[in-house]
Amino acid sequence: MRLASPGDIVLSYAGQKIGHVGRVAEFAFTAPKPEEFGQAGEYWNNEGWLLPIFWTELSPPVRPKDLIDLLRPYFPMKYSPISPETGNGNQKAYLAEVSVEIFKIVAESTSFDQRGLESGGANSLNYEVVVDNIEGAQERSIMAEAGLDETTRLAVVAARRGQGLFRKNVERIENACRLTGITNRSLLIASHIKPWRACKTASERLDGKNGLLLTPDADRLFDRGFITFLDQGEVKVSPRVDGNDLRRLGFAQLVIERFGFAEAPSVWGVGQFQSGQQEFLSYHRSEVFLQ
Amino acid sequence: MRLASPGDIVLSYAGQKIGHVGRVAEFAFTAPKPEEFGQAGEYWNNEGWLLPIFWTELSPPVRPKDLIDLLRPYFPMKYSPISPETGNGNQKAYLAEVSVEIFKIVAESTSFDQRGLESGGANSLNYEVVVDNIEGAQERSIMAEAGLDETTRLAVVAARRGQGLFRKNVERIENACRLTGITNRSLLIASHIKPWRACKTASERLDGKNGLLLTPDADRLFDRGFITFLDQGEVKVSPRVDGNDLRRLGFAQLVIERFGFAEAPSVWGVGQFQSGQQEFLSYHRSEVFLQ
Repeated sequence: MRLASPGDIVLSYAGQKIGHVGRVAEFAFTAPKPEEFGQAGEYWNNEGWLLPIFWTELSPPVRPKDLIDLLRPYFPMKYSPISPETGNGNQKAYLAEVSVEIFKIVAESTSFDQRGLESGGANSLNYEVVVDNIEGAQERSIMAEAGLDETTRLAVVAARRGQGLFRKNVERIENACRLTGITNRSLLIASHIKPWRACKTASERLDGKNGLLLTPDADRLFDRGFITFLDQGEVKVSPRVDGNDLRRLGFAQLVIERFGFAEAPSVWGVGQFQSGQQEFLSYHRSEVFLQ
Repeated sequence: MRLASPGDIVLSYAGQKIGHVGRVAEFAFTAPKPEEFGQAGEYWNNEGWLLPIFWTELSPPVRPKDLIDLLRPYFPMKYSPISPETGNGNQKAYLAEVSVEIFKIVAESTSFDQRGLESGGANSLNYEVVVDNIEGAQERSIMAEAGLDETTRLAVVAARRGQGLFRKNVERIENACRLTGITNRSLLIASHIKPWRACKTASERLDGKNGLLLTPDADRLFDRGFITFLDQGEVKVSPRVDGNDLRRLGFAQLVIERFGFAEAPSVWGVGQFQSGQQEFLSYHRSEVFLQ
Protein backbone atom coordinates (compact mmCIF):
# COMPACT_ATOMS: atom_id res chain seq x y z
CA MET A 1 0.00 0.00 0.00
CA ARG A 2 2.72 2.43 1.02
CA LEU A 3 4.74 1.92 -2.17
CA ALA A 4 1.85 3.15 -4.34
CA SER A 5 2.18 6.68 -5.69
CA PRO A 6 -0.43 9.06 -7.16
CA GLY A 7 -0.97 8.16 -10.82
CA ASP A 8 -0.25 4.43 -10.45
CA ILE A 9 -2.80 2.17 -12.19
CA VAL A 10 -4.53 -0.54 -10.13
CA LEU A 11 -6.62 -3.55 -11.21
CA SER A 12 -9.30 -4.83 -8.84
CA TYR A 13 -9.79 -8.59 -8.73
CA ALA A 14 -12.67 -10.22 -6.83
CA GLY A 15 -14.95 -13.20 -7.43
CA GLN A 16 -12.44 -14.49 -10.06
CA LYS A 17 -12.95 -11.35 -12.16
CA ILE A 18 -11.17 -8.06 -12.74
CA GLY A 19 -14.15 -5.70 -12.53
CA HIS A 20 -12.52 -2.31 -12.12
CA VAL A 21 -9.44 -0.38 -13.08
CA GLY A 22 -8.34 2.57 -10.96
CA ARG A 23 -5.80 5.33 -10.61
CA VAL A 24 -4.13 6.06 -7.27
CA ALA A 25 -5.22 9.57 -6.18
CA GLU A 26 -3.01 10.13 -3.13
CA PHE A 27 -0.28 8.42 -1.13
CA ALA A 28 -1.63 5.90 1.39
CA PHE A 29 -2.30 7.25 4.87
CA THR A 30 -2.96 5.68 8.25
CA ALA A 31 -6.68 5.16 8.96
CA PRO A 32 -8.95 2.96 11.07
CA LYS A 33 -10.63 -0.06 9.46
CA PRO A 34 -13.81 0.94 7.56
CA GLU A 35 -16.98 -0.21 9.30
CA GLU A 36 -18.29 -1.57 5.97
CA PHE A 37 -15.70 -4.39 6.20
CA GLY A 38 -17.87 -6.01 8.86
CA GLN A 39 -17.22 -9.70 9.45
CA ALA A 40 -15.00 -10.03 6.39
CA GLY A 41 -12.36 -7.94 8.12
CA GLU A 42 -12.82 -9.41 11.59
CA TYR A 43 -9.31 -10.79 11.88
CA TRP A 44 -7.62 -7.69 10.51
CA ASN A 45 -6.02 -5.04 12.64
CA ASN A 46 -8.23 -2.08 13.38
CA GLU A 47 -5.50 0.19 12.02
CA GLY A 48 -4.09 0.18 8.55
CA TRP A 49 -3.45 2.30 5.48
CA LEU A 50 -6.06 3.79 3.23
CA LEU A 51 -5.11 4.29 -0.42
CA PRO A 52 -7.54 6.65 -2.24
CA ILE A 53 -8.24 5.36 -5.78
CA PHE A 54 -10.48 6.64 -8.60
CA TRP A 55 -12.29 3.50 -9.84
CA THR A 56 -13.73 2.94 -13.31
CA GLU A 57 -15.80 -0.10 -14.27
CA LEU A 58 -14.57 -2.60 -16.85
CA SER A 59 -17.30 -3.60 -19.27
CA PRO A 60 -17.34 -6.54 -19.49
CA PRO A 61 -15.26 -7.70 -16.51
CA VAL A 62 -12.22 -9.81 -17.37
CA ARG A 63 -11.58 -13.37 -16.12
CA PRO A 64 -7.79 -13.81 -15.91
CA LYS A 65 -8.32 -17.59 -16.11
CA ASP A 66 -9.67 -17.13 -19.66
CA LEU A 67 -6.53 -15.21 -20.67
CA ILE A 68 -4.02 -17.24 -18.70
CA ASP A 69 -2.00 -18.33 -21.75
CA LEU A 70 -1.47 -14.69 -22.74
CA LEU A 71 -0.82 -13.50 -19.20
CA ARG A 72 1.42 -16.34 -17.95
CA PRO A 73 4.80 -14.98 -19.11
CA TYR A 74 4.25 -11.68 -17.26
CA PHE A 75 3.35 -12.89 -13.78
CA PRO A 76 6.13 -12.83 -11.19
CA MET A 77 7.41 -16.16 -9.87
CA LYS A 78 6.90 -15.13 -6.25
CA TYR A 79 3.93 -13.35 -4.62
CA SER A 80 1.89 -13.40 -7.83
CA PRO A 81 -1.71 -12.22 -7.31
CA ILE A 82 -2.87 -14.89 -9.83
CA SER A 83 -1.36 -18.35 -10.13
CA PRO A 84 0.50 -18.45 -13.51
CA GLU A 85 -0.27 -22.16 -13.76
CA THR A 86 -4.00 -22.30 -13.03
CA GLY A 87 -5.14 -18.66 -13.42
CA ASN A 88 -6.79 -18.83 -10.00
CA GLY A 89 -6.46 -15.99 -7.49
CA ASN A 90 -3.92 -16.06 -4.67
CA GLN A 91 -5.88 -15.57 -1.44
CA LYS A 92 -2.77 -14.29 0.32
CA ALA A 93 -2.13 -11.41 -2.08
CA TYR A 94 -3.82 -8.12 -1.23
CA LEU A 95 -2.00 -5.56 -3.36
CA ALA A 96 0.84 -6.79 -5.57
CA GLU A 97 2.91 -5.18 -8.29
CA VAL A 98 2.37 -6.58 -11.80
CA SER A 99 4.00 -5.70 -15.11
CA VAL A 100 2.48 -3.11 -17.44
CA GLU A 101 2.06 -5.91 -20.04
CA ILE A 102 -0.62 -7.47 -17.85
CA PHE A 103 -2.53 -4.19 -17.76
CA LYS A 104 -2.33 -3.92 -21.58
CA ILE A 105 -3.61 -7.45 -22.15
CA VAL A 106 -6.52 -6.89 -19.76
CA ALA A 107 -7.36 -3.48 -21.26
CA GLU A 108 -7.38 -4.87 -24.82
CA SER A 109 -9.93 -7.54 -23.94
CA THR A 110 -12.53 -5.13 -22.52
CA SER A 111 -13.50 -1.45 -22.52
CA PHE A 112 -13.77 1.34 -19.96
CA ASP A 113 -14.18 5.10 -19.78
CA GLN A 114 -10.64 6.52 -20.09
CA ARG A 115 -11.68 9.76 -18.38
CA GLY A 116 -12.08 7.80 -15.17
CA LEU A 117 -8.31 7.48 -15.04
CA GLU A 118 -7.60 11.15 -15.65
CA SER A 119 -6.66 13.40 -12.79
CA GLY A 120 -8.68 16.27 -11.32
CA GLY A 121 -12.00 17.47 -12.63
CA ALA A 122 -14.14 14.37 -12.79
CA ASN A 123 -13.60 13.07 -9.29
CA SER A 124 -13.30 15.00 -6.07
CA LEU A 125 -11.79 12.15 -4.09
CA ASN A 126 -8.79 13.42 -2.20
CA TYR A 127 -7.04 13.16 1.13
CA GLU A 128 -9.05 15.93 2.79
CA VAL A 129 -12.40 14.49 1.71
CA VAL A 130 -11.56 10.95 2.80
CA VAL A 131 -10.08 12.07 6.14
CA ASP A 132 -13.04 14.38 6.74
CA ASN A 133 -15.44 11.46 6.24
CA ILE A 134 -13.52 9.16 8.58
CA GLU A 135 -13.12 11.83 11.26
CA GLY A 136 -16.73 12.97 10.93
CA ALA A 137 -17.91 9.44 11.70
CA GLN A 138 -15.52 9.23 14.67
CA GLU A 139 -16.75 12.59 15.94
CA ARG A 140 -20.37 11.41 15.86
CA SER A 141 -19.49 8.29 17.81
CA ILE A 142 -17.52 10.33 20.39
CA MET A 143 -20.51 12.64 20.88
CA ALA A 144 -22.62 9.54 21.60
CA GLU A 145 -20.05 7.88 23.88
CA ALA A 146 -21.61 7.22 27.27
CA GLY A 147 -18.34 6.84 29.17
CA LEU A 148 -17.23 10.45 28.57
CA ASP A 149 -18.60 13.55 30.29
CA GLU A 150 -19.86 16.40 28.11
CA THR A 151 -16.84 18.67 28.73
CA THR A 152 -14.41 15.95 27.66
CA ARG A 153 -16.49 15.07 24.61
CA LEU A 154 -16.44 18.69 23.43
CA ALA A 155 -12.70 19.02 24.16
CA VAL A 156 -11.96 15.85 22.16
CA VAL A 157 -14.02 17.13 19.21
CA ALA A 158 -12.32 20.56 19.37
CA ALA A 159 -8.94 18.79 19.41
CA ARG A 160 -9.72 17.42 15.94
CA ARG A 161 -9.06 20.92 14.58
CA GLY A 162 -6.24 21.67 17.02
CA GLN A 163 -8.44 23.86 19.20
CA GLY A 164 -9.42 24.27 22.85
CA LEU A 165 -7.84 22.22 25.62
CA PHE A 166 -5.56 20.31 23.24
CA ARG A 167 -4.06 23.53 21.90
CA LYS A 168 -3.53 24.87 25.44
CA ASN A 169 -1.79 21.63 26.39
CA VAL A 170 0.50 21.85 23.37
CA GLU A 171 1.29 25.51 24.08
CA ARG A 172 2.51 24.53 27.54
CA ILE A 173 5.22 22.38 25.95
CA GLU A 174 6.00 23.98 22.59
CA ASN A 175 6.36 27.70 21.83
CA ALA A 176 7.45 27.97 18.21
CA CYS A 177 7.19 26.23 14.86
CA ARG A 178 9.99 23.67 14.70
CA LEU A 179 10.63 24.41 11.03
CA THR A 180 10.38 28.20 10.80
CA GLY A 181 10.87 29.38 14.39
CA ILE A 182 7.71 31.49 14.16
CA THR A 183 6.10 32.26 17.56
CA ASN A 184 3.16 34.39 16.32
CA ARG A 185 0.16 32.40 17.53
CA SER A 186 -2.08 33.53 14.71
CA LEU A 187 0.25 31.82 12.23
CA LEU A 188 0.58 28.55 14.15
CA ILE A 189 -1.50 25.36 14.02
CA ALA A 190 -1.58 22.86 16.89
CA SER A 191 -0.97 19.60 14.96
CA HIS A 192 -1.32 16.10 16.34
CA ILE A 193 1.85 13.99 16.02
CA LYS A 194 -0.14 10.73 16.08
CA PRO A 195 -3.14 11.75 13.94
CA TRP A 196 -6.44 12.43 15.72
CA ARG A 197 -8.14 9.72 13.64
CA ALA A 198 -5.52 7.15 14.75
CA CYS A 199 -5.78 7.93 18.49
CA LYS A 200 -7.55 5.33 20.62
CA THR A 201 -8.54 7.35 23.69
CA ALA A 202 -9.64 10.83 24.72
CA SER A 203 -6.42 11.29 26.66
CA GLU A 204 -4.27 10.54 23.59
CA ARG A 205 -6.29 13.10 21.63
CA LEU A 206 -5.90 15.77 24.33
CA ASP A 207 -2.30 15.04 25.34
CA GLY A 208 -0.06 18.10 24.80
CA LYS A 209 2.89 15.75 24.26
CA ASN A 210 1.03 14.47 21.17
CA GLY A 211 1.25 17.92 19.56
CA LEU A 212 3.49 20.40 17.81
CA LEU A 213 2.97 24.05 16.88
CA LEU A 214 3.60 24.34 13.15
CA THR A 215 3.02 27.01 10.51
CA PRO A 216 0.43 25.95 7.92
CA ASP A 217 2.93 24.70 5.30
CA ALA A 218 4.91 22.78 7.91
CA ASP A 219 1.67 21.33 9.28
CA ARG A 220 0.68 20.13 5.81
CA LEU A 221 4.07 18.49 5.15
CA PHE A 222 4.06 16.82 8.59
CA ASP A 223 0.41 15.73 8.40
CA ARG A 224 0.88 14.13 4.97
CA GLY A 225 4.08 12.36 6.03
CA PHE A 226 6.35 14.37 3.72
CA ILE A 227 8.54 15.26 6.71
CA THR A 228 9.06 13.86 10.19
CA PHE A 229 11.31 14.59 13.18
CA LEU A 230 13.96 12.56 14.96
CA ASP A 231 14.07 12.46 18.76
CA GLN A 232 16.86 15.05 18.90
CA GLY A 233 14.81 17.55 16.87
CA GLU A 234 16.32 17.01 13.40
CA VAL A 235 13.98 17.11 10.39
CA LYS A 236 13.80 14.10 8.08
CA VAL A 237 12.48 14.63 4.56
CA SER A 238 10.69 11.93 2.55
CA PRO A 239 12.14 10.99 -0.83
CA ARG A 240 8.53 11.23 -2.13
CA VAL A 241 8.51 15.07 -1.94
CA ASP A 242 9.42 17.10 -4.96
CA GLY A 243 12.47 19.30 -4.34
CA ASN A 244 11.00 22.18 -6.35
CA ASP A 245 7.87 22.13 -4.22
CA LEU A 246 9.99 22.29 -1.05
CA ARG A 247 11.98 25.22 -2.48
CA ARG A 248 8.81 27.09 -3.43
CA LEU A 249 7.36 26.52 0.04
CA GLY A 250 10.47 28.25 1.40
CA PHE A 251 12.21 25.13 2.68
CA ALA A 252 15.29 25.21 0.42
CA GLN A 253 17.46 23.94 3.28
CA LEU A 254 15.43 20.76 3.44
CA VAL A 255 16.13 20.06 -0.23
CA ILE A 256 19.89 19.98 0.30
CA GLU A 257 19.51 17.42 3.04
CA ARG A 258 16.52 15.61 1.70
CA PHE A 259 18.00 12.13 1.66
CA GLY A 260 19.69 12.58 4.98
CA PHE A 261 18.80 14.24 8.23
CA ALA A 262 18.75 18.02 8.00
CA GLU A 263 20.86 19.60 10.72
CA ALA A 264 18.39 22.01 12.27
CA PRO A 265 19.78 25.57 12.31
CA SER A 266 19.29 27.43 15.58
CA VAL A 267 16.78 29.83 14.00
CA TRP A 268 14.34 26.93 13.76
CA GLY A 269 14.16 26.93 17.52
CA VAL A 270 14.29 23.18 17.67
CA GLY A 271 15.63 21.02 20.44
CA GLN A 272 15.41 17.53 21.80
CA PHE A 273 11.89 16.23 22.31
CA GLN A 274 10.62 15.12 25.72
CA SER A 275 10.27 11.40 26.27
CA GLY A 276 6.44 11.61 26.01
CA GLN A 277 6.76 13.36 22.66
CA GLN A 278 9.28 10.79 21.46
CA GLU A 279 6.74 7.97 21.81
CA PHE A 280 4.29 9.77 19.52
CA LEU A 281 7.09 10.71 17.11
CA SER A 282 8.08 7.09 16.86
CA TYR A 283 4.49 6.36 15.70
CA HIS A 284 4.69 9.22 13.19
CA ARG A 285 7.98 7.94 11.73
CA SER A 286 6.73 4.37 11.28
CA GLU A 287 3.06 4.95 10.35
CA VAL A 288 2.70 8.42 8.78
CA PHE A 289 6.06 9.30 7.24
CA LEU A 290 6.33 8.29 3.57
CA GLN A 291 9.48 6.15 3.28
CA MET B 1 -12.92 47.91 15.27
CA ARG B 2 -10.39 47.48 12.49
CA LEU B 3 -7.76 49.69 14.16
CA ALA B 4 -7.61 47.42 17.21
CA SER B 5 -4.59 45.14 17.44
CA PRO B 6 -3.95 42.00 19.52
CA GLY B 7 -2.84 43.07 23.03
CA ASP B 8 -4.85 46.34 23.11
CA ILE B 9 -6.81 46.88 26.35
CA VAL B 10 -10.55 47.56 26.10
CA LEU B 11 -13.03 48.85 28.71
CA SER B 12 -16.66 47.79 28.41
CA TYR B 13 -19.28 50.40 29.36
CA ALA B 14 -22.99 49.58 29.62
CA GLY B 15 -25.80 50.67 31.92
CA GLN B 16 -23.64 53.63 33.02
CA LYS B 17 -20.98 51.30 34.39
CA ILE B 18 -17.65 49.92 33.29
CA GLY B 19 -18.15 46.28 34.19
CA HIS B 20 -15.36 44.53 32.31
CA VAL B 21 -11.84 45.07 31.08
CA GLY B 22 -10.54 43.04 28.16
CA ARG B 23 -7.56 42.33 25.97
CA VAL B 24 -7.92 42.13 22.19
CA ALA B 25 -7.06 38.55 21.17
CA GLU B 26 -7.04 38.86 17.37
CA PHE B 27 -7.46 41.44 14.62
CA ALA B 28 -11.10 42.09 13.77
CA PHE B 29 -12.56 39.97 10.96
CA THR B 30 -15.68 40.12 8.85
CA ALA B 31 -18.61 38.15 10.32
CA PRO B 32 -22.41 38.09 10.20
CA LYS B 33 -24.36 39.75 13.02
CA PRO B 34 -24.68 37.43 16.07
CA GLU B 35 -28.22 36.10 16.52
CA GLU B 36 -28.05 37.03 20.23
CA PHE B 37 -28.30 40.72 19.25
CA GLY B 38 -32.00 40.17 18.55
CA GLN B 39 -34.10 43.31 18.43
CA ALA B 40 -31.31 45.50 19.86
CA GLY B 41 -29.40 45.10 16.62
CA GLU B 42 -32.39 45.33 14.30
CA TYR B 43 -31.22 48.45 12.47
CA TRP B 44 -27.65 47.32 12.12
CA ASN B 45 -26.22 45.79 8.98
CA ASN B 46 -26.20 42.04 8.95
CA GLU B 47 -22.48 42.14 8.16
CA GLY B 48 -19.80 43.67 10.29
CA TRP B 49 -16.52 43.00 12.07
CA LEU B 50 -16.03 40.70 14.99
CA LEU B 51 -13.20 41.59 17.42
CA PRO B 52 -12.28 38.66 19.71
CA ILE B 53 -11.59 39.94 23.26
CA PHE B 54 -10.68 38.14 26.52
CA TRP B 55 -12.96 39.72 29.12
CA THR B 56 -12.34 39.96 32.88
CA GLU B 57 -14.88 41.26 35.37
CA LEU B 58 -14.25 44.44 37.38
CA SER B 59 -15.23 44.05 41.04
CA PRO B 60 -16.88 46.36 41.83
CA PRO B 61 -17.90 47.90 38.49
CA VAL B 62 -16.84 51.53 38.01
CA ARG B 63 -19.24 54.46 37.36
CA PRO B 64 -17.32 57.03 35.29
CA LYS B 65 -19.81 59.68 36.49
CA ASP B 66 -18.46 59.20 40.03
CA LEU B 67 -14.89 59.78 38.82
CA ILE B 68 -15.61 62.50 36.29
CA ASP B 69 -13.43 65.13 37.97
CA LEU B 70 -10.42 62.83 37.78
CA LEU B 71 -11.19 61.60 34.27
CA ARG B 72 -12.21 64.89 32.64
CA PRO B 73 -8.71 66.08 31.53
CA TYR B 74 -8.07 62.86 29.62
CA PHE B 75 -11.19 62.57 27.46
CA PRO B 76 -10.83 63.68 23.85
CA MET B 77 -12.73 66.80 22.76
CA LYS B 78 -14.32 64.98 19.84
CA TYR B 79 -15.97 61.54 19.71
CA SER B 80 -15.52 60.96 23.42
CA PRO B 81 -17.28 57.80 24.66
CA ILE B 82 -18.23 59.65 27.90
CA SER B 83 -19.20 63.31 28.07
CA PRO B 84 -16.34 65.13 29.87
CA GLU B 85 -18.89 67.62 31.23
CA THR B 86 -21.62 65.35 32.63
CA GLY B 87 -19.95 61.93 32.84
CA ASN B 88 -22.85 60.42 30.87
CA GLY B 89 -22.31 57.92 28.09
CA ASN B 90 -22.30 58.94 24.41
CA GLN B 91 -24.92 56.76 22.67
CA LYS B 92 -23.22 57.30 19.31
CA ALA B 93 -19.86 55.90 20.38
CA TYR B 94 -19.37 52.17 19.93
CA LEU B 95 -15.61 51.67 20.20
CA ALA B 96 -13.45 54.75 20.78
CA GLU B 97 -9.80 55.26 21.61
CA VAL B 98 -9.08 56.71 25.08
CA SER B 99 -5.81 57.63 26.76
CA VAL B 100 -3.96 55.17 28.97
CA GLU B 101 -4.50 57.58 31.91
CA ILE B 102 -8.21 56.76 31.83
CA PHE B 103 -7.46 53.06 32.10
CA LYS B 104 -5.14 53.70 35.07
CA ILE B 105 -7.73 55.79 36.96
CA VAL B 106 -10.42 53.15 36.39
CA ALA B 107 -8.10 50.28 37.38
CA GLU B 108 -7.05 52.03 40.61
CA SER B 109 -10.64 52.40 41.75
CA THR B 110 -11.51 48.71 41.48
CA SER B 111 -9.91 45.26 41.24
CA PHE B 112 -9.77 42.45 38.71
CA ASP B 113 -7.87 39.26 38.00
CA GLN B 114 -4.72 40.36 36.11
CA ARG B 115 -4.31 36.89 34.60
CA GLY B 116 -7.42 37.54 32.54
CA LEU B 117 -5.42 40.04 30.51
CA GLU B 118 -2.47 37.75 29.90
CA SER B 119 -2.09 36.02 26.57
CA GLY B 120 -2.37 32.31 25.84
CA GLY B 121 -2.91 29.64 28.47
CA ALA B 122 -5.98 30.75 30.35
CA ASN B 123 -8.31 31.42 27.45
CA SER B 124 -8.72 29.47 24.24
CA LEU B 125 -10.57 32.20 22.37
CA ASN B 126 -9.00 32.67 18.98
CA TYR B 127 -9.88 33.28 15.35
CA GLU B 128 -10.30 29.59 14.49
CA VAL B 129 -12.60 28.91 17.43
CA VAL B 130 -14.81 31.95 16.79
CA VAL B 131 -15.02 31.31 13.04
CA ASP B 132 -15.72 27.62 13.66
CA ASN B 133 -18.65 28.55 15.91
CA ILE B 134 -20.11 31.03 13.43
CA GLU B 135 -19.71 28.67 10.49
CA GLY B 136 -21.00 25.68 12.44
CA ALA B 137 -24.24 27.57 13.12
CA GLN B 138 -24.50 28.59 9.45
CA GLU B 139 -23.89 24.99 8.38
CA ARG B 140 -26.74 23.74 10.58
CA SER B 141 -29.11 26.30 9.13
CA ILE B 142 -28.07 25.41 5.55
CA MET B 143 -28.74 21.71 6.26
CA ALA B 144 -32.24 22.70 7.37
CA GLU B 145 -32.91 25.08 4.47
CA ALA B 146 -36.03 23.97 2.63
CA GLY B 147 -35.28 25.88 -0.60
CA LEU B 148 -32.15 23.86 -1.39
CA ASP B 149 -32.04 20.31 -2.70
CA GLU B 150 -29.94 17.78 -0.78
CA THR B 151 -27.09 17.70 -3.34
CA THR B 152 -26.69 21.47 -3.22
CA ARG B 153 -26.83 21.52 0.58
CA LEU B 154 -24.04 18.95 0.79
CA ALA B 155 -21.98 20.80 -1.84
CA VAL B 156 -22.34 24.09 0.06
CA VAL B 157 -21.27 22.46 3.32
CA ALA B 158 -18.28 20.77 1.62
CA ALA B 159 -17.33 24.16 0.15
CA ARG B 160 -16.77 25.44 3.69
CA ARG B 161 -13.56 23.39 3.78
CA GLY B 162 -12.71 24.03 0.15
CA GLN B 163 -13.89 20.59 -0.96
CA GLY B 164 -16.15 18.97 -3.53
CA LEU B 165 -17.89 20.96 -6.24
CA PHE B 166 -16.41 24.28 -5.10
CA ARG B 167 -12.87 22.95 -5.42
CA LYS B 168 -13.64 21.52 -8.87
CA ASN B 169 -15.04 24.89 -9.94
CA VAL B 170 -11.91 26.70 -8.70
CA GLU B 171 -9.63 24.19 -10.43
CA ARG B 172 -11.33 24.98 -13.75
CA ILE B 173 -10.14 28.62 -13.44
CA GLU B 174 -6.93 28.50 -11.40
CA ASN B 175 -4.10 25.99 -11.70
CA ALA B 176 -1.36 27.14 -9.33
CA CYS B 177 -0.77 29.00 -6.09
CA ARG B 178 -0.55 32.70 -6.93
CA LEU B 179 2.22 33.24 -4.38
CA THR B 180 4.45 30.20 -4.82
CA GLY B 181 3.56 28.85 -8.27
CA ILE B 182 3.06 25.36 -6.82
CA THR B 183 0.75 23.12 -8.91
CA ASN B 184 0.94 19.94 -6.77
CA ARG B 185 -2.72 19.44 -5.79
CA SER B 186 -1.87 17.78 -2.50
CA LEU B 187 -0.19 21.01 -1.35
CA LEU B 188 -2.99 23.36 -2.47
CA ILE B 189 -6.08 24.61 -0.64
CA ALA B 190 -9.14 25.95 -2.47
CA SER B 191 -9.70 29.20 -0.54
CA HIS B 192 -12.74 31.44 -0.81
CA ILE B 193 -11.94 35.04 -1.77
CA LYS B 194 -15.11 36.35 -0.12
CA PRO B 195 -15.17 34.20 3.03
CA TRP B 196 -17.68 31.32 3.14
CA ARG B 197 -19.25 32.82 6.31
CA ALA B 198 -19.78 36.16 4.51
CA CYS B 199 -21.45 34.68 1.41
CA LYS B 200 -25.18 35.21 1.08
CA THR B 201 -26.20 32.45 -1.31
CA ALA B 202 -25.33 28.89 -2.27
CA SER B 203 -24.15 30.09 -5.67
CA GLU B 204 -21.68 32.55 -4.12
CA ARG B 205 -20.32 29.75 -1.96
CA LEU B 206 -19.92 27.37 -4.92
CA ASP B 207 -18.72 29.90 -7.50
CA GLY B 208 -15.28 28.97 -8.85
CA LYS B 209 -14.63 32.66 -9.48
CA ASN B 210 -14.86 33.16 -5.71
CA GLY B 211 -11.82 30.93 -5.19
CA LEU B 212 -8.06 30.69 -5.42
CA LEU B 213 -5.70 27.75 -5.11
CA LEU B 214 -3.17 28.63 -2.42
CA THR B 215 -0.51 26.75 -0.45
CA PRO B 216 -1.32 26.51 3.27
CA ASP B 217 0.81 29.51 4.36
CA ALA B 218 -0.53 31.68 1.53
CA ASP B 219 -4.09 30.58 2.40
CA ARG B 220 -3.56 31.60 6.03
CA LEU B 221 -2.14 35.03 5.12
CA PHE B 222 -4.98 35.64 2.63
CA ASP B 223 -7.72 34.34 4.92
CA ARG B 224 -6.56 36.51 7.83
CA GLY B 225 -6.28 39.62 5.64
CA PHE B 226 -2.49 39.88 5.92
CA ILE B 227 -2.23 39.92 2.12
CA THR B 228 -4.61 40.62 -0.76
CA PHE B 229 -4.40 40.82 -4.55
CA LEU B 230 -4.96 43.64 -7.03
CA ASP B 231 -6.97 43.02 -10.19
CA GLN B 232 -3.83 42.67 -12.30
CA GLY B 233 -2.48 39.92 -10.04
CA GLU B 234 -0.07 41.92 -7.85
CA VAL B 235 0.20 41.02 -4.17
CA LYS B 236 -0.48 43.71 -1.57
CA VAL B 237 0.91 43.21 1.94
CA SER B 238 -0.73 44.59 5.08
CA PRO B 239 1.38 46.88 7.30
CA ARG B 240 0.05 44.78 10.22
CA VAL B 241 2.22 41.77 9.28
CA ASP B 242 5.59 41.33 10.88
CA GLY B 243 8.42 41.33 8.32
CA ASN B 244 10.32 38.60 10.19
CA ASP B 245 7.28 36.36 10.09
CA LEU B 246 6.98 36.87 6.33
CA ARG B 247 10.67 36.08 5.87
CA ARG B 248 10.39 32.92 7.96
CA LEU B 249 7.35 31.82 5.99
CA GLY B 250 9.53 32.05 2.89
CA PHE B 251 8.01 35.27 1.51
CA ALA B 252 11.12 37.51 1.72
CA GLN B 253 10.12 39.21 -1.54
CA LEU B 254 6.91 40.43 0.05
CA VAL B 255 8.88 42.13 2.84
CA ILE B 256 10.78 44.33 0.41
CA GLU B 257 7.57 45.54 -1.12
CA ARG B 258 5.42 45.42 1.96
CA PHE B 259 4.23 48.97 1.91
CA GLY B 260 3.67 49.00 -1.82
CA PHE B 261 2.46 46.55 -4.38
CA ALA B 262 4.82 43.67 -4.90
CA GLU B 263 5.61 43.17 -8.58
CA ALA B 264 4.78 39.54 -9.06
CA PRO B 265 7.74 37.59 -10.52
CA SER B 266 6.86 35.23 -13.33
CA VAL B 267 7.61 32.17 -11.19
CA TRP B 268 4.55 32.99 -9.11
CA GLY B 269 2.43 32.13 -12.13
CA VAL B 270 0.15 35.08 -11.55
CA GLY B 271 -1.80 36.99 -14.10
CA GLN B 272 -4.75 39.30 -14.42
CA PHE B 273 -7.90 38.11 -12.71
CA GLN B 274 -11.15 37.53 -14.66
CA SER B 275 -13.86 40.10 -14.15
CA GLY B 276 -15.90 37.70 -11.98
CA GLN B 277 -12.91 37.18 -9.73
CA GLN B 278 -12.28 40.93 -9.56
CA GLU B 279 -15.67 41.50 -7.94
CA PHE B 280 -14.88 39.08 -5.12
CA LEU B 281 -11.35 40.52 -4.78
CA SER B 282 -12.79 43.98 -4.36
CA TYR B 283 -14.75 42.61 -1.38
CA HIS B 284 -11.59 41.02 0.03
CA ARG B 285 -9.62 44.26 -0.25
CA SER B 286 -12.26 46.35 1.49
CA GLU B 287 -13.62 43.90 4.08
CA VAL B 288 -10.93 41.30 4.86
CA PHE B 289 -7.56 42.95 4.18
CA LEU B 290 -6.06 44.60 7.28
CA GLN B 291 -5.30 48.19 6.29
